[in-house]
Amino acid sequence: MKRSDVSRRDVLKMSLVGAGALALGSVQAGAMQSAKDVKFDEEYDVIVIGSGFAGSMATLQALKRGLKVLMVEKMGRAGGNSVINAGNMCVPNSEFQKAAGIKDSKEVFIADCLKDGLNLNHVDLLGVIYERANDAFEYLKSIGVEFSGKVISSSGHSLKRAVQAKNSSGSGYIQPMHKLIEENANATVKKRTKFDDFIVDDSGRVVGIVARENYKFENNAASDDKENKSGDVKRFGAKKGVILAAGGYSSDKWFRAQQVPYLKTNIDTVSQPGATAGALIAAMKLGANPLQLSWIQLNPYTNPTEKGFGTSALFTNHCSNDYGLSVDAKTGKRFMNEHAGRKIKCDAIFKVMAESEKNDNYPVNICDQAAVDINSPAYTSKGVEAGSIKKFDTLEELAKAYNIPVEPFLKTVKDFNEYVKAGKDPEFGKPLKKDDVQGIDVSKPPFYASLSTPKILYCMGGVEINTKAQVISATTQEPIAGLYAAGEITGGVHGASRLGTMSMADCMVFGMVAGENI
Amino acid sequence: MKRSDVSRRDVLKMSLVGAGALALGSVQAGAMQSAKDVKFDEEYDVIVIGSGFAGSMATLQALKRGLKVLMVEKMGRAGGNSVINAGNMCVPNSEFQKAAGIKDSKEVFIADCLKDGLNLNHVDLLGVIYERANDAFEYLKSIGVEFSGKVISSSGHSLKRAVQAKNSSGSGYIQPMHKLIEENANATVKKRTKFDDFIVDDSGRVVGIVARENYKFENNAASDDKENKSGDVKRFGAKKGVILAAGGYSSDKWFRAQQVPYLKTNIDTVSQPGATAGALIAAMKLGANPLQLSWIQLNPYTNPTEKGFGTSALFTNHCSNDYGLSVDAKTGKRFMNEHAGRKIKCDAIFKVMAESEKNDNYPVNICDQAAVDINSPAYTSKGVEAGSIKKFDTLEELAKAYNIPVEPFLKTVKDFNEYVKAGKDPEFGKPLKKDDVQGIDVSKPPFYASLSTPKILYCMGGVEINTKAQVISATTQEPIAGLYAAGEITGGVHGASRLGTMSMADCMVFGMVAGENI
Repeated sequence: MKRSDVSRRDVLKMSLVGAGALALGSVQAGAMQSAKDVKFDEEYDVIVIGSGFAGSMATLQALKRGLKVLMVEKMGRAGGNSVINAGNMCVPNSEFQKAAGIKDSKEVFIADCLKDGLNLNHVDLLGVIYERANDAFEYLKSIGVEFSGKVISSSGHSLKRAVQAKNSSGSGYIQPMHKLIEENANATVKKRTKFDDFIVDDSGRVVGIVARENYKFENNAASDDKENKSGDVKRFGAKKGVILAAGGYSSDKWFRAQQVPYLKTNIDTVSQPGATAGALIAAMKLGANPLQLSWIQLNPYTNPTEKGFGTSALFTNHCSNDYGLSVDAKTGKRFMNEHAGRKIKCDAIFKVMAESEKNDNYPVNICDQAAVDINSPAYTSKGVEAGSIKKFDTLEELAKAYNIPVEPFLKTVKDFNEYVKAGKDPEFGKPLKKDDVQGIDVSKPPFYASLSTPKILYCMGGVEINTKAQVISATTQEPIAGLYAAGEITGGVHGASRLGTMSMADCMVFGMVAGENI
Repeated sequence: MKRSDVSRRDVLKMSLVGAGALALGSVQAGAMQSAKDVKFDEEYDVIVIGSGFAGSMATLQALKRGLKVLMVEKMGRAGGNSVINAGNMCVPNSEFQKAAGIKDSKEVFIADCLKDGLNLNHVDLLGVIYERANDAFEYLKSIGVEFSGKVISSSGHSLKRAVQAKNSSGSGYIQPMHKLIEENANATVKKRTKFDDFIVDDSGRVVGIVARENYKFENNAASDDKENKSGDVKRFGAKKGVILAAGGYSSDKWFRAQQVPYLKTNIDTVSQPGATAGALIAAMKLGANPLQLSWIQLNPYTNPTEKGFGTSALFTNHCSNDYGLSVDAKTGKRFMNEHAGRKIKCDAIFKVMAESEKNDNYPVNICDQAAVDINSPAYTSKGVEAGSIKKFDTLEELAKAYNIPVEPFLKTVKDFNEYVKAGKDPEFGKPLKKDDVQGIDVSKPPFYASLSTPKILYCMGGVEINTKAQVISATTQEPIAGLYAAGEITGGVHGASRLGTMSMADCMVFGMVAGENI
């Protein structure tokens, strides 16, 4: 038989792939069941895997079209990492940005992303975010998400283009979104329900999933995906297809360490423990093209004296790094552009930390009261309460508390204030404006400080999607019928490094696009 | 049914996966054939996919054990990229290195690799290369591979540790290796035979492949893997398993551009056109864990006036960059450590090139007669003949020919010679020794020069293997039974950037390990 005689339906002819075959239990080797032999336990139009920003937005858009949607979430609570997110979303051309007189452009937006992304970004996907983020923002307002009304700056962006939730948290989005989903008769949300694999029909189209209800995530497992066998196997049909919105693999100790071996060590993550690679791996076995999996972002703002994201990271990012300065505790000198992208800052911090034998020469992030006041009060108050942000009446006291040599430190502050006045940082090129807030007003105590160390924040890599949020097959180089993806489980959008507030834009926009197109 | 009731045989229960199912043609959806239903056209102990260094070494080691081996090669000629390789192999502790009085150590070797590899390397695999490269070298000598007898330096290594083929080419290895294979009654070599997919048994073990004989690679196809349907489908059994040694994806325009979008443009490659991702993608669909696919190495030595690897790259690398200097044609000044790793040099060259609007301000690589004489004559003679390396009686003439401003250029040469005398490069930190050869002896014409531009050289990413060359499954985190891999199709060894002469060491060592262990 000649290969050329074979039809091009290709590759996905088998009816169940990967763990799905197993989960069905009754499947005999040599007698695989096709989708038409599968008796679905329940049938829907759309199945959404994951309940964070991307999954919630996809669900809402599909519901808006009158479709019957099943959302599955393996954890006991909905919202994944999104509810512990800071609540800031990049929205080029938002009403708040316009009101502040800031003119954005697609060229500047893409140039900002490519700079930190080391030109690895898929520019067509960035274009979709630029064009549609405001649609997502307007929709979110329309369903009751409350915003602060401000446009704010964020890491790696050359101009202010982010909006922020009034409550400074991703929960400010997730709560009204889930309220709406739960009120909708066409929506079914199943928590503690783990996606295991896809069910595909004879043509290769994804028509359902194998999942386990009553699943109980094992926090203490070395690898929950590998070891955890809890739950009752079910087959759910999805007439229009499946949307993967299962997030990244920051908490997947095995998978992340294969891609980036030095993350094997005791590096902490800011993600919730459910952020594992299981759904991504199932998609790869279906043929989804995996992109840039070895680019894992570390957060330069997190605090070594806190667990996970902690309470001082927003202070360090917005109060200190945006308006104040960061110094090497050993020298009292600045060592980086505090407004550079995350990767640049993490590398700079790792270098400073390594100046001590124990790798613990953590940089000290400093600002004054004005910088605290211009930001959300919660950024600072929680950390002060917890003790991870310290408050001082004089800069000398601050220096002493962190073992910073006093004289060099005071000179650093003086120099920095002069740079602010001049509007130019000759040492590290931090963009400075003659701003009442920028710099340290030495005449107006108190002063604030916090330590920082990188923790795993975000996985840039994931499955390839096109501008319609369809998952691309590595074999056919075309969309896998019936399979969409959005958010952190996808790759290519951010290249080598995601800019601040771009995760939410990515999730919301491609969640919306997936829900519109499926 | 509870998931916990299911046996842990896991995931690979289906009998045929991916394109294999299709290729069998008679397979009906809903009635997949298991391996026991497959009538193999031919049966072997071992099947090796690919005929370059890794595949040839694996084949020879398996033959040595008395096993019956089938080697399949999709192209019309054997040897893949290996025959167009420069023939230099990193061998820590070789007799040549010892004779030169150079003391190597595992720590220094690994530190060299990690530096360019940005700590992304899988150190356990580097350890295997350090421990076994000399075994591979001794074996190669024993089968008639001829070496120059020298130990040579190469890009990124802090000391000399490479051996070189007498004929300065990978063919110096491939020819004697293939001669031995062809003389062995237990060996079958099938050229123009394309691997399409794996056949696995009920336990998930790889027991054979689906391939096409009489396959004709289409040079002009946008994607041969996707479009080419030529050939006759066969099923070959492999009692002990399959060794993947199919190389990288430098020539796969679609696949490489998904990982690194800027390689979409008119960037050339030094690889042969058969270097596509098809075999890697089939392995990923079987569950093989893909590592670091977005790290693609560019060669900083290649010449924009030549096609592919050309004839001047070895001159630029060894004669000019090792002993001479490289200058920005626009300024006449040096712009990089000419002995840095490839990635650092490519980035530096891209920056220099971009100084012209057409992106063609190519750096000029220069050396004197002594630098030519200490290297293999072929490094220079071929390029001089082809016109891609130019010869000048004076440095002034050289400068004029490349439009380099003369005075700054002469000052650069003078400074560089002083750095050599002092044994220290204060500008770019190139490691310099007070060496008779290093520097430009202005009193001894002629002088040589060539242009350079980055071209795609090597794909660091690929499937994950362990120290026994077994392919690791992303789902089970354990070896996939019956599946081994070696060489460029594997990932993790080199991290972000492969050092010079490390590809051959990787191929030879893990080819050997795979052939020993299967």
